Amino acid sequence: MKIEVHRERLARELDALGAISAEAPPVVTRVVFTAADLRAREFVKRLCREAGLTVREDAVGNTFARWPGEDPALAPIATGSHIDAIPNAGRFDGTVGVFGALEAIRSLQRAGFRPRRSIELVIFTSEEPTRFGIGCIGSRLICGLLHPAAAAQLRDRDGVSLDEARASAGFTGSLESVRLPRDHFSAFLELHIEQGPFLEQRGIPVGIVTAIAAPATLTIAAEGEGGHAGGVLMPDRHDAFLAAAEIALAVEAAARATGSLDTVATVGVCEIFPGAVNSVPSRARIEVDVRDIDRSRRDSVLHAIAAASSEIASRRGVRISRELVNADPPAQSSPALVDALAESCRAHEIACETMISRAYHDSLFMSRIAPTAMLFIPCRGGVSHRPDEYASPEAIAVGTLILAETLARLASE
Amino acid sequence: MKIEVHRERLARELDALGAISAEAPPVVTRVVFTAADLRAREFVKRLCREAGLTVREDAVGNTFARWPGEDPALAPIATGSHIDAIPNAGRFDGTVGVFGALEAIRSLQRAGFRPRRSIELVIFTSEEPTRFGIGCIGSRLICGLLHPAAAAQLRDRDGVSLDEARASAGFTGSLESVRLPRDHFSAFLELHIEQGPFLEQRGIPVGIVTAIAAPATLTIAAEGEGGHAGGVLMPDRHDAFLAAAEIALAVEAAARATGSLDTVATVGVCEIFPGAVNSVPSRARIEVDVRDIDRSRRDSVLHAIAAASSEIASRRGVRISRELVNADPPAQSSPALVDALAESCRAHEIACETMISRAYHDSLFMSRIAPTAMLFIPCRGGVSHRPDEYASPEAIAVGTLILAETLARLASE
Repeated sequence: MKIEVHRERLARELDALGAISAEAPPVVTRVVFTAADLRAREFVKRLCREAGLTVREDAVGNTFARWPGEDPALAPIATGSHIDAIPNAGRFDGTVGVFGALEAIRSLQRAGFRPRRSIELVIFTSEEPTRFGIGCIGSRLICGLLHPAAAAQLRDRDGVSLDEARASAGFTGSLESVRLPRDHFSAFLELHIEQGPFLEQRGIPVGIVTAIAAPATLTIAAEGEGGHAGGVLMPDRHDAFLAAAEIALAVEAAARATGSLDTVATVGVCEIFPGAVNSVPSRARIEVDVRDIDRSRRDSVLHAIAAASSEIASRRGVRISRELVNADPPAQSSPALVDALAESCRAHEIACETMISRAYHDSLFMSRIAPTAMLFIPCRGGVSHRPDEYASPEAIAVGTLILAETLARLASE
Repeated sequence: MKIEVHRERLARELDALGAISAEAPPVVTRVVFTAADLRAREFVKRLCREAGLTVREDAVGNTFARWPGEDPALAPIATGSHIDAIPNAGRFDGTVGVFGALEAIRSLQRAGFRPRRSIELVIFTSEEPTRFGIGCIGSRLICGLLHPAAAAQLRDRDGVSLDEARASAGFTGSLESVRLPRDHFSAFLELHIEQGPFLEQRGIPVGIVTAIAAPATLTIAAEGEGGHAGGVLMPDRHDAFLAAAEIALAVEAAARATGSLDTVATVGVCEIFPGAVNSVPSRARIEVDVRDIDRSRRDSVLHAIAAASSEIASRRGVRISRELVNADPPAQSSPALVDALAESCRAHEIACETMISRAYHDSLFMSRIAPTAMLFIPCRGGVSHRPDEYASPEAIAVGTLILAETLARLASE
């Protein structure tokens, strides 16, 4: 069987998807359940139907497009990723894993391959935490790691609940029904851009992920005392923003203090109230992201942040409240799938290397219900979550080829 | 002549104005040229006309309500303040100086007083810097300290220019026409809440301002490198928000380092881009407010902030740009007016004390074209620019009485 990936068509489809954005190209902003997200979903479903796939959507909008296998009694093999995007993002994060998987299926169809197991393309809802503060809502619900009752409590900054948002997007029914049993899929594979510089710097076209770093997210709110910027003397101040600024620097220091490159911590959101140049900030709120492949080291960073926050709060006379949004364990890939991906690379004489992923993905959660592995392709400069994020059509085609080869291998078992 | 201030009516009028807000009571948000500001203007003008005053508005919306004197050849004496309010503000900042002046005029009318000089109530446009980043737009234009061409360049965060905003509010004509000559007013008096704790702590009902601290405002923008919060290793980061956080702490340190209580510095605004929890901030922007009664000490703080910003930028590999929005000299009150206010207090057996104002006011600019002085009344806890800002009807009535007595004295000269 000769698998031929149509890389120009795939590149065109990714370009077309990139243009479906709340902002003008090259900026991609496609937040879950906004108009841009809904248009993108329609585009992907149309392409899936054109490829003869059977499309099903669950109560939270996770989308399953199935190429039925010859033996419907066998658990299908799943592959996929996400199409939502943070504000001011690029064209390749998540989307390569969706369109690459679709093209992998089409290339197998063109090669005359007939799968024994069904092959199912999965497009997960809200991998990005932008709207509801927590990432991977779709895959967390699938795997039971987010309780439906907790999901129903989620609200965006405008107070819109997840239930209201999904209903307005046409997704109704009980969130309980989203969960899938442990034997539902025989395996899950996710193709993704690396979002780091490892592969590009080494000139390696395929990375095989053996583990995904453990992410944690917390919000820290500071409440001090406001007042007129001219009227309140410096010794009398309890400035909430200065407390938040100190905590942000303590977050950075805590990550660096582990001495490991695998520890990263970021304050990506800071909101000030009332936010006027001549008013001492009375409230501030930051969102903190901490990751490590070592869960206990990750947790030690969380503890260091908590200790620093308490010291800063006490010294500045500011009240601090911390909320842990999520603190997930790391995931290990299935050794059998890692071997299968490596075997596909050997078969096509493509160099590959094993690596860990510091970014997390729906795979982190899918690994709870199915043997899981990821394959990475290089992206320019390791840049991601930015409009200049870029993966070449050639790099994407290589990843798609290896995915197709591996799907064929696994679907024949 | 017996002057009687109707304090209940005055309190009712201030309450009614407080309810004209973009937010629900007790929160006052009345940004210049928004619907709330325009409704507040109509309310004040109606009360002025009911008091028999002749209302004129200039091209930027400064409002002049005149009680004509018996000798129209004499330069009028002016008094007034502002009615715009920052987001999440209270009911008394500015408004006490407008409604107190109106009630002072009405109390003189009731007492049968006939002024030789005209008495003119002035309501200044955009004392607050909220919308266009610079405060006292109306009084700066009156005094020629803001060039009309520079004013025309001002834009709000949505890109709306001052010219577009004033036109939409019905104020047209050349901004050149706003400027008034040096001999236009014989004097300017401004009644205001203290916005600090000095008077309340000492139990003094009236403060007479001898000098106004010199304010400066600057914006500092940091541009670093964004990226995925999981993908970019800590040593490779150029996080714009962390640079801004360090600069904010350096602003605080620079103000404290002068060793003088009269130095204050505040970062009241911080904006992060792209502002996603899983994205390293690529850009951040802060707004800095620095004040001192000593101009050279104020400028030394600006220099210290500049030096710290450069060091932080260089160490973090982040580009910093600073823009000085304004750096005004301090103002000295007219000794003759300070004496006149003190004499009025003595006449009514009201205790008073001289003091300086660290908050700035339209008086800072009016002092350029007319002998100027301010009188302060206590506000609860020294709190201002907050919904719980409070001055009692009794305290306001005392200030209004002293203002009326002084206006009568000066209008008879």
